[in-house]
Amino acid sequence: MNAEKIPDIIIGRLPVYLRALQRMADNGLKTTSSQELGEHVGISAAQIRKDISQFGEFGKQGTGYSIAYLLDKLREILKVDRKWDVVLVGAGDMGHALANYQGFANRGFHIVMIFDNDKEKVGQKIDQFTVEDTEKMIERVKAAGVKIAMLTVPAAAAQSVTDKLMQAGVKAFLNYAPISLNVPNNVKVQYIDPATHLQRMTYYL
Amino acid sequence: MNAEKIPDIIIGRLPVYLRALQRMADNGLKTTSSQELGEHVGISAAQIRKDISQFGEFGKQGTGYSIAYLLDKLREILKVDRKWDVVLVGAGDMGHALANYQGFANRGFHIVMIFDNDKEKVGQKIDQFTVEDTEKMIERVKAAGVKIAMLTVPAAAAQSVTDKLMQAGVKAFLNYAPISLNVPNNVKVQYIDPATHLQRMTYYL
Repeated sequence: MNAEKIPDIIIGRLPVYLRALQRMADNGLKTTSSQELGEHVGISAAQIRKDISQFGEFGKQGTGYSIAYLLDKLREILKVDRKWDVVLVGAGDMGHALANYQGFANRGFHIVMIFDNDKEKVGQKIDQFTVEDTEKMIERVKAAGVKIAMLTVPAAAAQSVTDKLMQAGVKAFLNYAPISLNVPNNVKVQYIDPATHLQRMTYYL
Repeated sequence: MNAEKIPDIIIGRLPVYLRALQRMADNGLKTTSSQELGEHVGISAAQIRKDISQFGEFGKQGTGYSIAYLLDKLREILKVDRKWDVVLVGAGDMGHALANYQGFANRGFHIVMIFDNDKEKVGQKIDQFTVEDTEKMIERVKAAGVKIAMLTVPAAAAQSVTDKLMQAGVKAFLNYAPISLNVPNNVKVQYIDPATHLQRMTYYL
């Protein structure tokens, strides 16, 4: 197995398999097949077998996959067999929703700090967090060794916040600001922009 | 031009070009090149030229693209040269953030109704909306002819809400619930799940 050689499109499907398998496990299931998993995620059984086989032999012909084993392996591959600290920048509506979101902890993530540059928001409590001033962001993030950030700042601020966070050592950005970010090749960005997602579907309507 | 033949991956990039071009226009720019646009969106100039040429000849060798013209064409192709009504289901934190989000109106979308099945939320005001009971959802959505829905419901409720909305005529879903939806081929789904997006990046860390 050579991690560098796995196409990114396959990596992108693994979290979806992981999520579906976790749901099966939560429902008390012990084993599954590529067929059954495929029905849950809307991907063909052949594609799933091919994707998973990139990482080794995890299932047996005829008996299918052990859900617990496959969960362990997928978590290991995706490196969410540990807990990642995440910094959240932007304490507006979306920042609040993410700070209160209960779906991170059991999937490998843990928000540890929230920043905003608005002096009225600094010092506010969100869930168990106190919003901190972005002036202290580089220093704080660097000291804590945080590698992942979620940005819910306005588009106009997103690049400068990104530059500062990269300076602090952040290597992965989940960007809710409606703008593309300029980052070097060794930094990853995923985009969440509801209008962009909607526009991708209206083409077909 | 045969709309059916354009690969979905190209369609997925068009909203990103549209967003960057709109930003250039807002900044007072009149023309751009595939090179310049590429730097904004992190996609090669060659890829951009190839993507755009699928739909006709919109630029001139040497003089580049008229931003206003390309904006018009992209809006027309993506069918966001009109305003689409959108129904929002789920009046929790994320539903509130979306209801208050200012980024839909100028990109072709308009939330028209918000539903929740929680009797304590029904009747609540969010922005200019009153949260309505999901019991009336099928009837209301059908009568209004809404084709697009955003779901911010719990995973366990997402499929049944989707089934009801399809019954009411909805053809496109932006799903924030952390679960894959089963829909027929003529119905589109886009997924927004922050933990899935984050897990896709940890692989590389």
